Amino acid sequence: MKHGGDLLTYENQYDGELIDFSSNINPLGPPNGLNEVLIKSFKEMTTYPDIKYRKLKTSISNYLNCPIENVLVGNGAVEIINNFIIRAKNVIVCTPSFIEYEERAIAHGKQVRKIPYKKDYTIDIEALKNIKENELLILGNPNNPTGFRIPQDDLINIYNLVRKAEAFLLLDEAFYEFCPKDYDSIEIFKKYDYEGVGIIRAATKFFALPGIRLGYGCTCVEKVREISKIELPWSVNTLADAAGQYIFSHKEYINKSKDYIAIERKFLFEELSKIVGIQPYITHTNYILIKLEKWDEEYVFNFLLKRGLVIRKCSSFKDLDDKHIRVAIKDRANNVRLVEALKEL
Amino acid sequence: MKHGGDLLTYENQYDGELIDFSSNINPLGPPNGLNEVLIKSFKEMTTYPDIKYRKLKTSISNYLNCPIENVLVGNGAVEIINNFIIRAKNVIVCTPSFIEYEERAIAHGKQVRKIPYKKDYTIDIEALKNIKENELLILGNPNNPTGFRIPQDDLINIYNLVRKAEAFLLLDEAFYEFCPKDYDSIEIFKKYDYEGVGIIRAATKFFALPGIRLGYGCTCVEKVREISKIELPWSVNTLADAAGQYIFSHKEYINKSKDYIAIERKFLFEELSKIVGIQPYITHTNYILIKLEKWDEEYVFNFLLKRGLVIRKCSSFKDLDDKHIRVAIKDRANNVRLVEALKEL
Repeated sequence: MKHGGDLLTYENQYDGELIDFSSNINPLGPPNGLNEVLIKSFKEMTTYPDIKYRKLKTSISNYLNCPIENVLVGNGAVEIINNFIIRAKNVIVCTPSFIEYEERAIAHGKQVRKIPYKKDYTIDIEALKNIKENELLILGNPNNPTGFRIPQDDLINIYNLVRKAEAFLLLDEAFYEFCPKDYDSIEIFKKYDYEGVGIIRAATKFFALPGIRLGYGCTCVEKVREISKIELPWSVNTLADAAGQYIFSHKEYINKSKDYIAIERKFLFEELSKIVGIQPYITHTNYILIKLEKWDEEYVFNFLLKRGLVIRKCSSFKDLDDKHIRVAIKDRANNVRLVEALKEL
Repeated sequence: MKHGGDLLTYENQYDGELIDFSSNINPLGPPNGLNEVLIKSFKEMTTYPDIKYRKLKTSISNYLNCPIENVLVGNGAVEIINNFIIRAKNVIVCTPSFIEYEERAIAHGKQVRKIPYKKDYTIDIEALKNIKENELLILGNPNNPTGFRIPQDDLINIYNLVRKAEAFLLLDEAFYEFCPKDYDSIEIFKKYDYEGVGIIRAATKFFALPGIRLGYGCTCVEKVREISKIELPWSVNTLADAAGQYIFSHKEYINKSKDYIAIERKFLFEELSKIVGIQPYITHTNYILIKLEKWDEEYVFNFLLKRGLVIRKCSSFKDLDDKHIRVAIKDRANNVRLVEALKEL
C-alpha cells in the first residue's frame, strides 16, 4: 500500500465505520456553502472547463498573494509535481518523503539521487552542496511523513545553493496552512520572481477536498510557460474549478481550522508522549510520525484495525523501517479514541 | 486556439448567449438523475477516491462487456492516451487528427511520424506497412475532425500489420456511441485478449460531461500493468467516479441519443449540402467537417460569431488549411440556426 486513505481494502475487516487516521485531512471538513456552489456549477459540466482557468487562477493569485502569471493549477498537487519532474534532468529527493517524488521520477525515466534526512529529520544541507545544473530538488515543507518544516534560514541557504548550481528547488507545501505561523515561501521568493523555485499547495488537505482534485502552485513565468507546453488540457475538472473560486475567501474557516489543529496537535502529541513503548516525533503539521519501540507496524496496524482505526504503516515510505507509523490529527473524540487504543497495546 | 469549446474568449464579442458548435457534445445533455447521484457523493469528496477505482472499473467492464482486468480509467481520454504515449518508442499519427496525439508525443520527447489521410480521408494502409517495433499508431475511430470511421475490414488489416511489426495500435473512440451501428472494436479484439491494441472511450462527448473528466478504455493485461506503474494516483475525481458508476446503465437514454443524432446528422448534412460555396464531408459521427470553397475560416468564423454561433476553425489541426471549418451536430433549433446563418454568407 503506497498511500493512505484506502479504507475500501479494510472495510470487511471491521464491523462498523472505520476511522481514517491514515490520510491527513482537516477534521473540520470543507468550508460551509461549498455544496451549494457545486450544485450551481453542475450545468457547467456539459461544457469544457476554461482551458486557461482564468477565473480559478485569479482566485488562487489573490489567495497566495502572487501575480497571476506565476500561478499553476493541476489535478491535485501530484500532477503539478509530475510536470516539474518531466522537465527535469534528474531528481533529488530527501528520504523518507512522499513516495510519489521518486515514483514519478522513475515513471519518466529520470535518475533519482537520494539524500537521507539527518537522524532528527532535519535536512543535510552539507550533502546538498553537490547539486548540479538542471537537477530538481524536491522538498516536502513540511515533509511527509516526518512532519518537519524547514526553518526559514535553512530554506534561504538551500535556495542559494540551488540557484548557484543553476538547479531547481521544488517545495511541496501541501500541508502549509496547518503549520504554526512562521514564514510564507510565496512571500519570501516573490522578490526573486520565483526564479529557480516552485511552491506547490493544494485544496486536498487543509480544505478537506482530496476527492475533488485541486492542486495549485507558484513559480517563475519561464517555468509556467515551459509547463504549459506539456500539461494535459482540462486537467482540472469543472467542480474543482468552481470550488477553487469559492473556498479561499473563507478567512474565518481558515483561521478556525488553524487554531483547531494547533490545539489538537498539542493535545495528541502530549498524550502520545505519555504512552510507554512509542515515541512521537515533533511535528509542525496535522500528522504525527511515531517510532514503535516494542512492536512492528503490522502488529500495531492490525491491533488498531480491530478497534476500527486505520493508521499508516511507514515501511511503504521505503526509507523508513517497519518500526514506524503515522497518524493524522483528527477531532478530539477520535484523537482520544486513538490514544486509548494505543494505551491498550 | 488548439481546441474547441473555449467560449470565454469570445463572450465579449456577442451580445447574448453564444451557441457552441465548436465542441461536439451530445445535445440531449447527461442522463437524468445524475445530479442527485453527484449530490449524494459530495460527502465522499472529503476522502480520497478509491486508488484502484474498483467500483468504477466494474461499471465500465459491464458497459464495455470486457473483463475488468483490461479496463483503464483516466482524467479524460487525453490522460490515457498520454500514458500510452509515455510508454511508446515513437508515435505515428495520421493527419489531420486530434492535435493532442502529436502534442503529447512532443511533450514526452517522442518522435512523431505523420502519415496523411488520403484525399477522401480514408487511411493510407499502404503507407502503414513500414510500421516498426514499439511504434505507437494512434487512430481516431471515428477520426476528428474528419468524422470518418474505419471500415471493419480495414481495421483488421491494420491490426494485423501492427501485430506483425510488434508495434501497438491505439484507437481513440471518444465518439464511438454516435456512430451508426456497425462493429464494436472491444468485441472484435476480445478474442486476441487485446494484445497490441488499446481502445479509448470517454464520458466527455456522448454522455455530455466534458467538465467531469472521465475517460476509460480497454487494453491487454500487460499494458494495463505497465501503465499502472506510470499513471498518476487518484487521477479520476470522486464525482467522475460516482458518475461512471451511474451513467452507463441508462440504456434508454443511450438509444434515444443515438437515434436523435442519426436524424439530425442526416438533416444537417443534407441542408449543408444544398448551400452553395461550402462542401460538407460525409461523417459517421456528431460533427461535420466542411470545405469552404469561397471564403477562408476566419471570415466564416467571424461572420457566424456576429450571429452568436461559435464554430471550429480547422487550420489549428495543423494539417488542414484555412479553408475548413468543423461544426457540431446539435438540436434541431440550433442546427436550423446554423444552416440559416450559413445561407446568408
